[in-house]
Amino acid sequence: MPEGHFTVLKTSTKTSARRGILRTPHGIIQTPAFMPVGTKGSVKGMAPSDLIDLGVEMLLCNAYHLYLRPGCRFVEERGGLQKLLAWNRPILTDSGGYQVLSLNTLVRVNDEGVVFKSHLDGSRHAFSPEKAIEVQEALGADIIMSFDECLAYPSDYAKTSSSLKRTLLWARRSKEAHHLENQSLYGIIQGGFYPDLREVSLTGLLEIGFDGYAVGGLCVGEPKEMTFQTLQQIVPKIPAAFPRYLMGVGTPEDIVASVLLGIDLFDCVLPTRHARTGILFTSEGTLHIRNAKYAEDNQPLDPCCACYACRNFSRAYLRYLFMARELLALRLNTLHNLYYYLTLMKTLRAAIEDDSIEGRAFC
Amino acid sequence: MPEGHFTVLKTSTKTSARRGILRTPHGIIQTPAFMPVGTKGSVKGMAPSDLIDLGVEMLLCNAYHLYLRPGCRFVEERGGLQKLLAWNRPILTDSGGYQVLSLNTLVRVNDEGVVFKSHLDGSRHAFSPEKAIEVQEALGADIIMSFDECLAYPSDYAKTSSSLKRTLLWARRSKEAHHLENQSLYGIIQGGFYPDLREVSLTGLLEIGFDGYAVGGLCVGEPKEMTFQTLQQIVPKIPAAFPRYLMGVGTPEDIVASVLLGIDLFDCVLPTRHARTGILFTSEGTLHIRNAKYAEDNQPLDPCCACYACRNFSRAYLRYLFMARELLALRLNTLHNLYYYLTLMKTLRAAIEDDSIEGRAFC
Repeated sequence: MPEGHFTVLKTSTKTSARRGILRTPHGIIQTPAFMPVGTKGSVKGMAPSDLIDLGVEMLLCNAYHLYLRPGCRFVEERGGLQKLLAWNRPILTDSGGYQVLSLNTLVRVNDEGVVFKSHLDGSRHAFSPEKAIEVQEALGADIIMSFDECLAYPSDYAKTSSSLKRTLLWARRSKEAHHLENQSLYGIIQGGFYPDLREVSLTGLLEIGFDGYAVGGLCVGEPKEMTFQTLQQIVPKIPAAFPRYLMGVGTPEDIVASVLLGIDLFDCVLPTRHARTGILFTSEGTLHIRNAKYAEDNQPLDPCCACYACRNFSRAYLRYLFMARELLALRLNTLHNLYYYLTLMKTLRAAIEDDSIEGRAFC
Repeated sequence: MPEGHFTVLKTSTKTSARRGILRTPHGIIQTPAFMPVGTKGSVKGMAPSDLIDLGVEMLLCNAYHLYLRPGCRFVEERGGLQKLLAWNRPILTDSGGYQVLSLNTLVRVNDEGVVFKSHLDGSRHAFSPEKAIEVQEALGADIIMSFDECLAYPSDYAKTSSSLKRTLLWARRSKEAHHLENQSLYGIIQGGFYPDLREVSLTGLLEIGFDGYAVGGLCVGEPKEMTFQTLQQIVPKIPAAFPRYLMGVGTPEDIVASVLLGIDLFDCVLPTRHARTGILFTSEGTLHIRNAKYAEDNQPLDPCCACYACRNFSRAYLRYLFMARELLALRLNTLHNLYYYLTLMKTLRAAIEDDSIEGRAFC
């Protein structure tokens, strides 16, 4: 475990929000932070130079996708993800558990691990905690995740309980398998929507001891109240000294609400995926650029935004580019949405610093 | 006709190559120059900021495509192409003649003009010289082209002769229809592969009087020797004081050979289109990035290239991105190919300046 991985700089007096610093071999991340997702080793449409201009401090890459293609050996022989991607800043990889269980024709899951067929070519693969750590060590990210089982919603108590026990078993084996110095390992809290199971999960993980704790198994189809009930219950129980990572979340509103509860790290495909379907985040809500009402609209996407797309182009032109299927549309949309998310995080960090975060509207 | 539109700075002593300056309302172009093609109002995958970084001085946009979508009124109401595209540098538009005759279900061509069906939705449209000029005035480029008929290869003498007469008629009407100050109008030399007809065409155009002269109707399927026989014959007859533009050409080798014959301006989709199919121009010839032999290749695309892609990424990673259909692949490939073309033009200009162009290898 790297020394001094995380430092809380300031905690909001009226909420649980906190402002921190995460130290990694490839640099420092100001938290709360949002990680854009580079599923297959690139944030779709963005060059590393764009991400640097945007102020991105850490990327998330998917171990499962990179394991299948281009393969761990390929990445390892090229000096790891950072060198391959020309991204000399922090990277976090997920363990592949979520993708293995959601994207594939699952062959078998038991305490040993998971056997699945590749979504690319149907080839058969086995993932275990040891394999997931081996893969992530080869990829060489700054922060890696323990192997977990993520259940669909709804799942009953008995199923959730036994799955949680398996995830704890896997967490221990993940920890034991992990030997790479200078690479942090985070545990993932599961337990579905059962408060006592969430607590069992966290207690078990704390006993094993990780460098950070992630909340997994949320936003899997449950009503939003349940998501936040779970967060309200479990987040305060994660010791304040550790970074808290909410996996795969979410909308700007979800992020604000989660920061208020004390979450430090976020990743989500929403800004990049929405960009590619023409859904843009603005200070006035989401905007569907395909909508005919923007056909003649000379305003920027968001009059309050200072991104490259908003400083240079009108909604009318961006709509035209999108309808004409020009590559530039995807790029400008992605740039804008990421700028929106990163600006939101910056605003949230500033609001924690001057202790003005409570009761304010951020999006 | 703008005063002092073109100045020849230096002419090669042993070849016909010349180094010049083209002045336009949106800035100066150093010639010989290559124009990337922004068919529908964007160079596919490139933002204007990339093009500026690459040193692009002038873009070509297609009047036909922009006329159909988003439409001339749309562009005009937004202050013209430069404002719409956030490209505050020179733009040249072609007249649409080539596209009208090659992309569409042609309904009718006669001396009056062309009736055609849109390749987008089958709607019926009429283009005439007057219409082509009206469209290009509305788009507001710095340099526009007269309306011409471009024949397929092969076309016999009689057909070529009558088509050429029509093009001359259209050229005169284009000139008469053109009233926009500060916008140059170029005539297009046709005449197929018949030297006497090419000469009739040029003589006719010179009588009408244009700001520049383009060679059209080449690279339409003829053997390469015929292309260059035609250029060798006709280019020296274009008075040296005028800019000479070779439309839609070509490979790096074609460009070098044409510069040696005294051509000043080029446009071609080759670098951008090839990029999107994984064909890259390098100092060692073209490279097909899909080829399995690059799967583990840690070299840059071109060890002699200083573009962003070559400075940061390996062939192995670029091949992986291309095979995984990541958007970044198209962008990096396009960036590289345009860098290759623009560097070639820079090298050619320097070689004319120090009179070392003859007998040298450039690509």
